[in-house]
Amino acid sequence: MRVRYADTDASGAVHHATYLIYFEVARVEALRGLGVPAGEFAARGIAMPVIEAGLKVIRPARLDDLLEVDVLLDRVGPASFSFDYEVLRGGELIATGFTRMAVIDAASGGALRLPDWVRELLEGIGA
Amino acid sequence: MRVRYADTDASGAVHHATYLIYFEVARVEALRGLGVPAGEFAARGIAMPVIEAGLKVIRPARLDDLLEVDVLLDRVGPASFSFDYEVLRGGELIATGFTRMAVIDAASGGALRLPDWVRELLEGIGA
Amino acid sequence: MRVRYADTDASGAVHHATYLIYFEVARVEALRGLGVPAGEFAARGIAMPVIEAGLKVIRPARLDDLLEVDVLLDRVGPASFSFDYEVLRGGELIATGFTRMAVIDAASGGALRLPDWVRELLEGIGA
Amino acid sequence: MRVRYADTDASGAVHHATYLIYFEVARVEALRGLGVPAGEFAARGIAMPVIEAGLKVIRPARLDDLLEVDVLLDRVGPASFSFDYEVLRGGELIATGFTRMAVIDAASGGALRLPDWVRELLEGIGA
Repeated sequence: MRVRYADTDASGAVHHATYLIYFEVARVEALRGLGVPAGEFAARGIAMPVIEAGLKVIRPARLDDLLEVDVLLDRVGPASFSFDYEVLRGGELIATGFTRMAVIDAASGGALRLPDWVRELLEGIGA
Repeated sequence: MRVRYADTDASGAVHHATYLIYFEVARVEALRGLGVPAGEFAARGIAMPVIEAGLKVIRPARLDDLLEVDVLLDRVGPASFSFDYEVLRGGELIATGFTRMAVIDAASGGALRLPDWVRELLEGIGA
Repeated sequence: MRVRYADTDASGAVHHATYLIYFEVARVEALRGLGVPAGEFAARGIAMPVIEAGLKVIRPARLDDLLEVDVLLDRVGPASFSFDYEVLRGGELIATGFTRMAVIDAASGGALRLPDWVRELLEGIGA
Repeated sequence: MRVRYADTDASGAVHHATYLIYFEVARVEALRGLGVPAGEFAARGIAMPVIEAGLKVIRPARLDDLLEVDVLLDRVGPASFSFDYEVLRGGELIATGFTRMAVIDAASGGALRLPDWVRELLEGIGA
């Protein structure tokens, strides 16, 4: 993905919160690549909010950089799962991170055990 | 309000889209000052999406500037209403703008005539 | 471009300020398509801040929508120029807008007359 | 601070990346409270980019919530320092996090040892 003006801040580099947006775009696209677009989860009545996240910036990304974000499945638990991310610029690793997502009932907000179809879907990532 | 790092871009100035956020904060606070917090509209089943907006930047706002945003009621129509905004820094006008909001049914998304209680509320602004 | 989670707000639709970001991405890509990437302007010592903008939302864009943003040159003046934008979803026009950009000296922030190479570049858009 | 529309996403809750923005606002205000506004660091030729961050969401924040963000100094190293954050809503802890900042030369981007005046300043936080 291409770094946008709005992704940067007055330091000239990408604002650190923006990496979480890049992780999200990569995650959504990875799931779409497995056949499940973002709206499908809502249509099935579940949401997957990020409940934990971390990131490390090795070298700052800058305006107009072309970045590649790789997504790897880290762990699938009974009620949550984690992805790891690597951000590359011209083949060089410039940032890493992870997010942990819970699975909740979209209507009530209550925690759910991971549905079987989600578990099977996730096993298709980063294998 | 105080200009945040995330409000700026690589040019060193506030990203122009951020002015629309400042207008929104000023609008929400003006309505709260009249006794109607943002959640109250949802609780009454209506939403007020911005359907038209404009802005002019006279002098760029910068990181850590302390800004004042004044809200003035422009026009109340049968199914929409408009606010004008003035952004001041140390008493100097640095940006202006407007937004027009429709009133819709929050559940169906369908357009509504302006409810009487909203019309009366608006007459309390910028008089 | 694809609507991201971070582009939406609690109403479920794209936040209206996000359209200005979409316009910017389309503008940057149009200039890149003419052979001038965003960093090139900075390298030549000029910046092109948005000094005026407007937008109309016809139908709200939603999470995961795939949007096309068309860019048209509107006007080239002595010290500024304007673009018009059309946002399409599946061929249907859902939003329109414009931005006016000044040309300034990146170091001093002072206004510049439009350089000839910028004027010639712009004439390649939307013809 | 008050949760803004633009801070939320289509799930109805605050987008997780927004917590990093809240941390930043709290950090900047804590430093300002110690007598050093954000622009002062730039004026002295240093920048303090976030090079590592983490967050945990315990309960989702929602539109119009009034949040308190507490800042605690975690660690001061030779070339970086860390802050911990606690986000409270009505006295209840709803999110936690940390950021680690490097100190760099604003012009060259090169890493610096922590200047003495910054070290003394930091010791005024969270003691």
